[in-house]
Amino acid sequence: MSENSSAFSLQPPVSSVASSGIIVQKYGGTSVANPERIKHVARRLLETQQEGNSVVGVVSAMSGVTDGLIQLSKQISTTPTSREMDVLLATGEQTSMALTAMAIEALGGKAVSLTGAQAGIVTNELHTKAKIHHITPQQIEKHLKQGKVVIVAGFQGETEEGEITTLGRGGSDLTAIALASALGADACQILTDVDGVYTCDPRIVPKAQKIEVISYDEMLEMAGSGSKVMQSRSVEFAKKYSVSFEVCNSFNTQPGTIVKEESPCMEQVVVRGISVERNQAKVTITNVPDRPGCAARIFGAIAEAQLNIDVIVQDVSANGTTNISFTLYRDDLEKIGTMLDCVAQEIGAGAVRKEGGIGKLSVVGIGMRTHSGVAAKLFEALARGGVNIQMISTSEIKIAVIVDEADVVLAAQLAHTAFGLDRS
Amino acid sequence: MSENSSAFSLQPPVSSVASSGIIVQKYGGTSVANPERIKHVARRLLETQQEGNSVVGVVSAMSGVTDGLIQLSKQISTTPTSREMDVLLATGEQTSMALTAMAIEALGGKAVSLTGAQAGIVTNELHTKAKIHHITPQQIEKHLKQGKVVIVAGFQGETEEGEITTLGRGGSDLTAIALASALGADACQILTDVDGVYTCDPRIVPKAQKIEVISYDEMLEMAGSGSKVMQSRSVEFAKKYSVSFEVCNSFNTQPGTIVKEESPCMEQVVVRGISVERNQAKVTITNVPDRPGCAARIFGAIAEAQLNIDVIVQDVSANGTTNISFTLYRDDLEKIGTMLDCVAQEIGAGAVRKEGGIGKLSVVGIGMRTHSGVAAKLFEALARGGVNIQMISTSEIKIAVIVDEADVVLAAQLAHTAFGLDRS
Repeated sequence: MSENSSAFSLQPPVSSVASSGIIVQKYGGTSVANPERIKHVARRLLETQQEGNSVVGVVSAMSGVTDGLIQLSKQISTTPTSREMDVLLATGEQTSMALTAMAIEALGGKAVSLTGAQAGIVTNELHTKAKIHHITPQQIEKHLKQGKVVIVAGFQGETEEGEITTLGRGGSDLTAIALASALGADACQILTDVDGVYTCDPRIVPKAQKIEVISYDEMLEMAGSGSKVMQSRSVEFAKKYSVSFEVCNSFNTQPGTIVKEESPCMEQVVVRGISVERNQAKVTITNVPDRPGCAARIFGAIAEAQLNIDVIVQDVSANGTTNISFTLYRDDLEKIGTMLDCVAQEIGAGAVRKEGGIGKLSVVGIGMRTHSGVAAKLFEALARGGVNIQMISTSEIKIAVIVDEADVVLAAQLAHTAFGLDRS
Repeated sequence: MSENSSAFSLQPPVSSVASSGIIVQKYGGTSVANPERIKHVARRLLETQQEGNSVVGVVSAMSGVTDGLIQLSKQISTTPTSREMDVLLATGEQTSMALTAMAIEALGGKAVSLTGAQAGIVTNELHTKAKIHHITPQQIEKHLKQGKVVIVAGFQGETEEGEITTLGRGGSDLTAIALASALGADACQILTDVDGVYTCDPRIVPKAQKIEVISYDEMLEMAGSGSKVMQSRSVEFAKKYSVSFEVCNSFNTQPGTIVKEESPCMEQVVVRGISVERNQAKVTITNVPDRPGCAARIFGAIAEAQLNIDVIVQDVSANGTTNISFTLYRDDLEKIGTMLDCVAQEIGAGAVRKEGGIGKLSVVGIGMRTHSGVAAKLFEALARGGVNIQMISTSEIKIAVIVDEADVVLAAQLAHTAFGLDRS
């Protein structure tokens, strides 16, 4: 997935640390959840301005508001058109942006709020998951020059024809990163309710520590492996346009995690972080005839059913047949139903075994490219702890193993220690 | 008060009854208060279309929503800027318009919702009480031609510079009437939670009946005298642009009250209706020196305090002094405080007497212009019932009397009967 954004002007790469210049700060739904928190956000935006910066705040809808609107729409229609959903959902950010601007003004600051359309965010016509086509930030620049803090509604834009669109999940992050690029901002901060990206989920590994700097690719692998600080889409966009950004906590002023292009020194750390996904399931189709087209038939049927599958493993063939296994979300297991039994029969394969209670552990780091023995170290650590590995999948900068769900916490702690990530 | 709207195109006068053509229907907040009611509105709009009409629906915010947003803003700022209030409040109508369009689509109809800006409603820059400057209805016309029911957000517009504005109280009625004018609509219906305009408030006079036809001027006098079916402003706008409209109930299909230009036959009815205002108060300044400037000093002080006063009566001068009395809302009485005592002392007048518990009865009808004896008939009816008249005020088509609040219901019933308005 990548944004279609040929019309972006070429700006110098955005750095994440700035002395004075344009700063884009994005505040998520929990950060603007109620009037008190909105006032807090206003203070923070104003302080950033008072440090000598031009400040653009991107705000999400107050937490719960978007879900409330979706509930309301469901009472009206089971299949609302995506155009009207966008008109409806766009009110959530419009509400929080006005309240945030009011809060800044109440503190004696100058502020102005802009909808996606007013901010010049032009998208394609794919309602509910529109892609940013280009940004014409003249209005924002005009207000910044007048010394105002500019509050922009996240998650939304408008088409060339003036139709309201929304950008889909993680859309507010995307708004912030795209604005940082279009404005040639000196810094972009994604303020959320966590301190940054951690070496592992601290609820799973209490010794997990905050990562200071992480590359786009590592962030993408972490995001794709259960560390849902941000949607992959926004990170991909940032990578494409070389926008460094910082993920930090809106409730404190600690430095967060800087996400940026990789540099040679970043490779010195072999493993950046470990991510864990629970609630997985495994499906195995036994005795699949070892001839062309069988795998295509199986995964074609799964794709048709719009199920997202993750790790796929095919055993070494024996006696002209092989076993094919894959993992997916446990919630999706039911949707498979008897579909695969039919396919298995059709291609002359054996039984279809379904199994919940599966977990995935991913070890991520660009340092793997230049350091060998990472897999061996991981397997050794898990073996020493008695954790059985069911499946293995690797990419250039990631090793993922599928284990019993009951083992996943222990496995994460073992790996975390083995790769020297534990907080001292 | 009149809308600055020089750029309105000259369209043929809008009639309120149409066979097939463009119909504008406005639904107030109680009519779209919840999903069930929105579905009802959708059915009604669709039925109107199925009768062969091009239909534009103007919707208010769901009842309670605007107040909720105001409450929210008060938690953020005691003095929010009017610009940001408009951004905030405009979300209310945007929500209901999207839901209404969804409801029509759920019934199998074609619909599209448009914000004030998208509908081409251009206003001046007076945030929270903007005046419509002109309307460019091309978007609406385009969608109507495509067979869609067009749902427009009431109460809002945008400036030439693209700033979101709202039209102030009664703004959705104004949107409907202005759209009817700009589109050259064949009919304009204001759908509300009452059956139309009544000869008197039925809670006060049980024998009150619905008025079939009323002139703009009568409607204005009724509105200005406590019959708050519509804000005066919308009626004035309709009068200026000769837009007849019908006030009717969104919860039934009975004919409502048609508001239109007066015609000779309308003068045959001497009194069209009676309106009542309670919660009034009276202030009397005694022994005001009968010399130029004294009244100006008194009412200048009141205007400075931004108090709205209603009936003013000055006694015949005796011994070089006079008594000056006026009425105002009882809630405003406190705000006067000791201000008038100081003024009275300054101009050498006597005591200032304040009195709550006052009511006003207004008898309205364009027939008064050509029929004499209306005042005599009213006074006689009240005298027979033992109602004492404290003050009298008249206009060309209205006689208003101030009575004790305890007498106001009896007075209304007596007048209603005397002028032959009782339902048979």
